[in-house]
Amino acid sequence: MNNTEELNTPQLSGNFKKELLQEAADRFNTPLYVYDLDRIQKRFNELKQAFSGRKALVCYALKANSNLSVIKKLASLESGADCVSLGEIKRAIMAGIPKYKIIYSGVGKQDCEIKEAIKLGILFINVEGKEEMLRIEACSKELGIPARVSIRVNPDIDPQTHPYISTGLKENKFGVSIEEAKGMYLYAHNAKFLEPIGIHFHIGSQITKLKPIAESAQKIAQLTRSLLALKIGIKFFDIGGGIGIAYSKENTIDLYDYAQAILEELRGLDVTIVCEPGRFIVGNSGVFLTKVLYQKENQGKHFVIVDGAMNDLIRPSLYEAYHQILSLKNPNAESASYQVDIVGPICESGDYLGKNISLPLLEQGDILAILSAGAYGFSMASNYNTRPRCAEVAIEGGEMRLVRKRECFEDLIALEKEYL
Amino acid sequence: MNNTEELNTPQLSGNFKKELLQEAADRFNTPLYVYDLDRIQKRFNELKQAFSGRKALVCYALKANSNLSVIKKLASLESGADCVSLGEIKRAIMAGIPKYKIIYSGVGKQDCEIKEAIKLGILFINVEGKEEMLRIEACSKELGIPARVSIRVNPDIDPQTHPYISTGLKENKFGVSIEEAKGMYLYAHNAKFLEPIGIHFHIGSQITKLKPIAESAQKIAQLTRSLLALKIGIKFFDIGGGIGIAYSKENTIDLYDYAQAILEELRGLDVTIVCEPGRFIVGNSGVFLTKVLYQKENQGKHFVIVDGAMNDLIRPSLYEAYHQILSLKNPNAESASYQVDIVGPICESGDYLGKNISLPLLEQGDILAILSAGAYGFSMASNYNTRPRCAEVAIEGGEMRLVRKRECFEDLIALEKEYL
Ligand SMILES: Cc1ncc(COP(=O)(O)O)c(C=O)c1O
Ligand SMILES: Cc1ncc(COP(=O)(O)O)c(C=O)c1O
Repeated sequence: MNNTEELNTPQLSGNFKKELLQEAADRFNTPLYVYDLDRIQKRFNELKQAFSGRKALVCYALKANSNLSVIKKLASLESGADCVSLGEIKRAIMAGIPKYKIIYSGVGKQDCEIKEAIKLGILFINVEGKEEMLRIEACSKELGIPARVSIRVNPDIDPQTHPYISTGLKENKFGVSIEEAKGMYLYAHNAKFLEPIGIHFHIGSQITKLKPIAESAQKIAQLTRSLLALKIGIKFFDIGGGIGIAYSKENTIDLYDYAQAILEELRGLDVTIVCEPGRFIVGNSGVFLTKVLYQKENQGKHFVIVDGAMNDLIRPSLYEAYHQILSLKNPNAESASYQVDIVGPICESGDYLGKNISLPLLEQGDILAILSAGAYGFSMASNYNTRPRCAEVAIEGGEMRLVRKRECFEDLIALEKEYL
Repeated sequence: MNNTEELNTPQLSGNFKKELLQEAADRFNTPLYVYDLDRIQKRFNELKQAFSGRKALVCYALKANSNLSVIKKLASLESGADCVSLGEIKRAIMAGIPKYKIIYSGVGKQDCEIKEAIKLGILFINVEGKEEMLRIEACSKELGIPARVSIRVNPDIDPQTHPYISTGLKENKFGVSIEEAKGMYLYAHNAKFLEPIGIHFHIGSQITKLKPIAESAQKIAQLTRSLLALKIGIKFFDIGGGIGIAYSKENTIDLYDYAQAILEELRGLDVTIVCEPGRFIVGNSGVFLTKVLYQKENQGKHFVIVDGAMNDLIRPSLYEAYHQILSLKNPNAESASYQVDIVGPICESGDYLGKNISLPLLEQGDILAILSAGAYGFSMASNYNTRPRCAEVAIEGGEMRLVRKRECFEDLIALEKEYL
């Protein structure tokens, strides 16, 4: 197995050694998210490497994991940021990402957010529709500062992923059609306060096949050529995020092929490639640790009740997502001796972390590692059942440290108690 | 339409007048949860009334809506509390619910939580399995205080609801079989530090048919009789929660029939009836207000992008739940002029509040009311996309007041920034 493959599969390697993870659980308690910052670095560099020799900017998509220390690590690697709210922009800046490497995407931008983004002088705003463009224009007029924009074009291509995270088909809320985009570019080109400098597509998340991305790039490159012919100065070609990872043993996109396919479609175009990966960088760089509380057998079905729940990691419930699960005491799959459902303490049948998982015999207090939990894990956590959100820990060069404190009861009621 | 029906259907009545809701949106901004405390009172009293003349205790299930001011209102009506975590127990006590009216349920109780519950002297602990009972025994021994327990029995009956919130079939993590329960009761009866005083079942949530509940009550009543014959002093018969509400025009369980069916099964038994409703009390007593940001048409499909999202109200995404949606300016369904999807700003196709909703023509800034949002709304909210959680407002006698402040960026990073 080569390095890339190892990084791309959910396994206990690098800083994720069972002794270190057990130590993290002992020191910081469970449930707990643990991130391997060295692995994040390797993932980021791999992607950067794939586009080396070309003008390219990797803008990490904060939504996947917005912990400030994770962003800071990426800032130190010269990453940019893809943000979808003013809150995310503030996080990026706080963690040290330069303003000129920040892009702002998302279908629901509000006036105050748009104005703040313009005032900050971020790289560009990804525009999702005509109405939004007019709002951006109004905001920039009011401020007297032209807004750099890029238009999200919907190539109408099926990314072949979970419907909830598929965004490239025409019948959804994202982007505009190629025809509509043309009109918008012409409008922006002639507008004093709009500067159309980029073009954008993003067709979905957890994409494991290259073809839909290559086809989208082809369509959008074609559009770019026709815009350039009209003297509309497209400088940034934003290929979105969405590169899938292996949650199990599935095949994923080879980065070299990915870059080549994009470069192939961009032949002759003098543009900076922007990409917005989230999951690819952090997904397999995070594990979620949880402790065995109880075991139960109901009619031959075995349940392991753990202290982590759907409020901590909602992907299994929300997307029926699969995560590999190992026992730290005995992480070898070969020693599996029974099939169990790993379930949390929340009073819903939908509260599970894994179904029909093969594990060695477990005891109360054993720590389970839920792998590939670095993306869309903590960032989607809630306080359902008045459960405090768990702590987050980072490991770098074998050293671990807290990067977010565990919530306590007082944190949960802080904004309510004065009204009692 | 009689009073009960009116209370049970999603409509703008009582304190939910369009002018008042518009005022709430103007004063406190959107997205916003608004609760009608008078309606909560009526719902609570209706249920209490149904069991009048019998020893009965309504323990509101905090998980549905755990806002302190909502709990305080119920405390003033002499409600008890059904809690599933130490956090919920603390909320109940803070809001004024007496300890002796608190019950503690849930499959993942931890030693520290169990000990705290025993020390506080709550009414009883609903035990979910054998292993848990032994842990409770160990904890009470250590403290030298006997623990009052009730065993959750799984009657193996299909509640005919969404699989995620169905909990009464044998192949799930909840409760124990009737046979197992018998053994556990005998054990507890002979254990010095366990006091088996109750019996419990709860087969699911949003149940709209009486039959599965009546059948469960019958099975559990039968078991109770055989336990009493063994001199095991069952004093509390806990029928769980789960009474469904109308999200649209569906038929729901008539409270009179509900009470009669239970009482019928309990003939000759001298027990206090405990029930644990959540959704029934708060579901139709809450609305979620959200503002129209943008409109888009893609290939004949109309999207209304609003400022509320799946991080605020996840029920549509998670359970494919339906919520009635009205425009405050023109709440009459008759004036509908197009069919739209109501979607949020989050970058997922799964981020929607309603699909194919008929509405009158909308404009930017219009306020939409998402009805029946009082249960499993705010309590499941997250900060996904670094979106601050919204504010909560209560209306009582036509007067509105804040009951939870809107989060700000500083709140979101408070537990992270010191590690940067
Ligand atoms: C516009 C945009 N860019 C980037 C991303 C990041 O996607 P991923 O984490 O799959 O790389 C998303 C995810 O939803 C997105 O919507
Ligand atoms: C044990 C128990 N009691 C009560 C409830 C409250 O249910 P509802 O809100 O449907 O009344 C639940 C909900 O999951 C539960 O699990």
